[in-house]
Amino acid sequence: MKKTLSLAALCVLATAPALAQEGEIIRDGEYRYLEAQFGEAWAEQDERIDGRLNEIWEANGGKPPNILYILIDDVSFGQMGSRKLNYVTGIDTPNINQLAQDGLSLMRMYTEPSCTPTRTAFLTGRHPIRAGVEEVKVALVGEGLPAEEVTLAEVLKQAGYNTAHVGKWHQGDIEQAYPHNQGFDWAAFPLHQQVQLSLMIREAKDANNMLGYHLSGQSNQFGLDERFRPYGLVTGVEAEAGGMAREVDMEPGEEWTQAKYEEMNERYQRQILEQLDRLAAEDEPFFLQYWPLYPLNFAYPEQAISRNGGFHADKLQLLDSWIGDLLARLDETGEADNTIVMLMADNGLMYHYEGTSGLNQLIYRGGKTQHLEGGVRTDAFIRWPGVLAPDSAVGDIVHVSDLFTTFARIGNAMDYIPRDRIIDGVDQTPLLLEGEGNSRRDYVYVYEGAIMRSVVKQEFKMHLPAPGVPGAAAPVYNILRDPREEHAQIGNALWSGASFQDMVKRHQKMIAKYPHLPLGTGMPYEGIENLRPESELAREVFTSWQ
Amino acid sequence: MKKTLSLAALCVLATAPALAQEGEIIRDGEYRYLEAQFGEAWAEQDERIDGRLNEIWEANGGKPPNILYILIDDVSFGQMGSRKLNYVTGIDTPNINQLAQDGLSLMRMYTEPSCTPTRTAFLTGRHPIRAGVEEVKVALVGEGLPAEEVTLAEVLKQAGYNTAHVGKWHQGDIEQAYPHNQGFDWAAFPLHQQVQLSLMIREAKDANNMLGYHLSGQSNQFGLDERFRPYGLVTGVEAEAGGMAREVDMEPGEEWTQAKYEEMNERYQRQILEQLDRLAAEDEPFFLQYWPLYPLNFAYPEQAISRNGGFHADKLQLLDSWIGDLLARLDETGEADNTIVMLMADNGLMYHYEGTSGLNQLIYRGGKTQHLEGGVRTDAFIRWPGVLAPDSAVGDIVHVSDLFTTFARIGNAMDYIPRDRIIDGVDQTPLLLEGEGNSRRDYVYVYEGAIMRSVVKQEFKMHLPAPGVPGAAAPVYNILRDPREEHAQIGNALWSGASFQDMVKRHQKMIAKYPHLPLGTGMPYEGIENLRPESELAREVFTSWQ
Repeated sequence: MKKTLSLAALCVLATAPALAQEGEIIRDGEYRYLEAQFGEAWAEQDERIDGRLNEIWEANGGKPPNILYILIDDVSFGQMGSRKLNYVTGIDTPNINQLAQDGLSLMRMYTEPSCTPTRTAFLTGRHPIRAGVEEVKVALVGEGLPAEEVTLAEVLKQAGYNTAHVGKWHQGDIEQAYPHNQGFDWAAFPLHQQVQLSLMIREAKDANNMLGYHLSGQSNQFGLDERFRPYGLVTGVEAEAGGMAREVDMEPGEEWTQAKYEEMNERYQRQILEQLDRLAAEDEPFFLQYWPLYPLNFAYPEQAISRNGGFHADKLQLLDSWIGDLLARLDETGEADNTIVMLMADNGLMYHYEGTSGLNQLIYRGGKTQHLEGGVRTDAFIRWPGVLAPDSAVGDIVHVSDLFTTFARIGNAMDYIPRDRIIDGVDQTPLLLEGEGNSRRDYVYVYEGAIMRSVVKQEFKMHLPAPGVPGAAAPVYNILRDPREEHAQIGNALWSGASFQDMVKRHQKMIAKYPHLPLGTGMPYEGIENLRPESELAREVFTSWQ
Repeated sequence: MKKTLSLAALCVLATAPALAQEGEIIRDGEYRYLEAQFGEAWAEQDERIDGRLNEIWEANGGKPPNILYILIDDVSFGQMGSRKLNYVTGIDTPNINQLAQDGLSLMRMYTEPSCTPTRTAFLTGRHPIRAGVEEVKVALVGEGLPAEEVTLAEVLKQAGYNTAHVGKWHQGDIEQAYPHNQGFDWAAFPLHQQVQLSLMIREAKDANNMLGYHLSGQSNQFGLDERFRPYGLVTGVEAEAGGMAREVDMEPGEEWTQAKYEEMNERYQRQILEQLDRLAAEDEPFFLQYWPLYPLNFAYPEQAISRNGGFHADKLQLLDSWIGDLLARLDETGEADNTIVMLMADNGLMYHYEGTSGLNQLIYRGGKTQHLEGGVRTDAFIRWPGVLAPDSAVGDIVHVSDLFTTFARIGNAMDYIPRDRIIDGVDQTPLLLEGEGNSRRDYVYVYEGAIMRSVVKQEFKMHLPAPGVPGAAAPVYNILRDPREEHAQIGNALWSGASFQDMVKRHQKMIAKYPHLPLGTGMPYEGIENLRPESELAREVFTSWQ
């Protein structure tokens, strides 16, 4: 298997930017504004940081550390990582709690408000809209992450990392967007996501989560178009870099079920363990992604394992035990001391199912799809033995795009970050190595899709006024005093309106200079070697109106 | 000082029930219902518990442990005790966090929804309404905790404890209700509470918290009655058991100010340290109450110390440092190992000031005065070195009245619990000594004043229907899946309506058998030796219509 992968890896290298990039990284306006104030201190600090990183690499035989990045779907801040908060919800997450205890908690991690953009931000270090990415829909779209974007996997690969991806991907259904074409040596992933795989199925309808959308729910006597519902969509595929993808575990004509969804999740859990074993045995450092589909799931189990018992909550507790197994396996490989393990959620809960899913807004208001703190604040824990103090925490602002730049620096791969486009991701290595107060950002722009909806600066957050509405009417919240963003006071807006306006201008001027790139487009399902007849048909129907 | 106190103590003993009580403690119906199911197992367990308590007393020279009980005003669940949640609010509570780390967290402590009833429940082990107590108002009322109620201080005193109270009392302005007439050897306390002392003052109006209620805020050109505002109210007093109270730090004609309020708080902090020193030097075990007035306060400090800076939040952080000083002093006395330290809040935040106070609802919805979880769920931490494991937690339901019975048992004072009235407080010693799952209650009746508004059983909570509204319309919430009580589902009510109805019936039948006692009444301000002329006048005016 090793040989095949190496060949495939060579193919990818041949198509990726092969040379170190020259010049400075291009930054957004707000960063430059801070840099003008703190640039000298940062430069001094960077020398220390470089020294420390060199020591770390030296101690590891000249190699940067492995990175295992676990991204969980749709879980609100506070739902995992704290034994005491586990009592509030009746969901036990002992393994994630232990991970938090063993490392650093990023107490103010901002994501994008939904799955696709958060993942794009992590992969590219850029606001997703710069790559044309707003939100990838569940069904056929013929769209996805453009080949022109340079992912963290591509960056780390050029610095000598082996890479693999297991689980949810959600970056589109076109060939250029597939993970094995975006820097991963090997990948197992579903072409679409959980709506197709766990919501549009009979069991979710039976659990009262789809109001009869499944065809078993009504006679459909006066309906015409059966393909208004999911039809012939590709499910899970596997592939090596540069190769064709192959759909697994699905026969022509077969109906997707909850049992198949659960098997898929179990398969990904098996595969992440296999990939870990395989990568740990190599000489090169590894970058391994585990992006589970759970806790999303819309049917009740035969017997709940959590005290909560909600259909998301129960699967979160199951997933926690799987993460325990994964970390135990990492210990067995002997690589735990040289491996950064990071775990976080991609955005807030799917609050629309609150009450029955068992997850809830807990502390921050709002959830998935929303610019409110409940949509974009998630738990985030990093374990890095010998470097990050156990049970430590920092209150600094971090955005998910910062991980791109930070992991690139830790992976000795800064030279491979592109210099021809804006990189929003701020290097947070100083925060990791020198502690609280060392973040190089005190701001976040919060988008919902293509629309900027909020601007965060320090503890203040402005909800931007709708077009044509006077700025003085824009509510500004103090999120320390008012975490649920419910008590705007006009004085705050009157004072800070101008400051927020300046921030937006700095951002917009840089967009004018470096315009957004277009979303990748193409024929859906190219590069899949065993398309089922119904998938072929779905694709034909999809393109029939063009 | 010691001699005087002993004499005073004798006086109190002469008026309190002098003999051990005979027979079984009278329990509410729901407890009996559980006892019918688990009585045998409980009896067996009680033998073990008695053995263990005897060991603990033996190890302490035959004496039960000291009890230091700190009750903080109006703080929501999650606002203190967790370093990581401190990041959410920007309020640092390192000393309370350490206390939580050093002991047991009661993760499901229920209080009453406001100050007076919670304190009555703690002092008497009874639902406050059984003593006629609903809520004691801020101004003159001529009402209070009846002499006939037997307080925990009286119970522990008879078992040989020395007792003292420092800080908020809020059990009424009549002589029989004063703490030194309710079992405390010594007491320093304000006659009323923070509304008079920190809200109805010029500084709170200037801080925009009273909409000009203070007379400095408008000309009052067409007003008649100046005494509609606070007038001549007694402020802080001090007294020994059986003696007269004496108002301190207030001259005739003097206006109460924020500076005086802050001095009062600082004085109580000094006095709690003095009382601790005094009591620790005695041979007898002590029961010492510290009921701070902070964090309540309605003016901004000259310079905030917390990142949050809200007027409640900042004082909570200050109070935390004072508690650190108190615990350090306890260490210095050498009594820390023999002292149970308990800290909790009396009810949820004053949510009406949310946004500017800096406190917020955080996890549970609602606050002070409300039967919602946000009104009656508070943080509660117990440290008992050598007995309670550090950093432990239990998810069992506990009600504040349980502390009466539990401290009585730990204090070897069960014989002095009255046997002629219902005692709601459940003995939670098994929970403390044998851990999670050993609570003897899985229910709570939640009153707002005289009206039962909710019934809690396990993770379910029914909001009772208004009179005349059909039971099927009563919303039932699953508070693990829905901590904010926002997503009632009719199925829950249809199923559990009957079960909740049975619970209410069991409670009501016991009330019919043991009717509520009347609230204590009398002439306000009796027993104060230095009433100011304006206080005399206020009392005359108060009674002039009678």
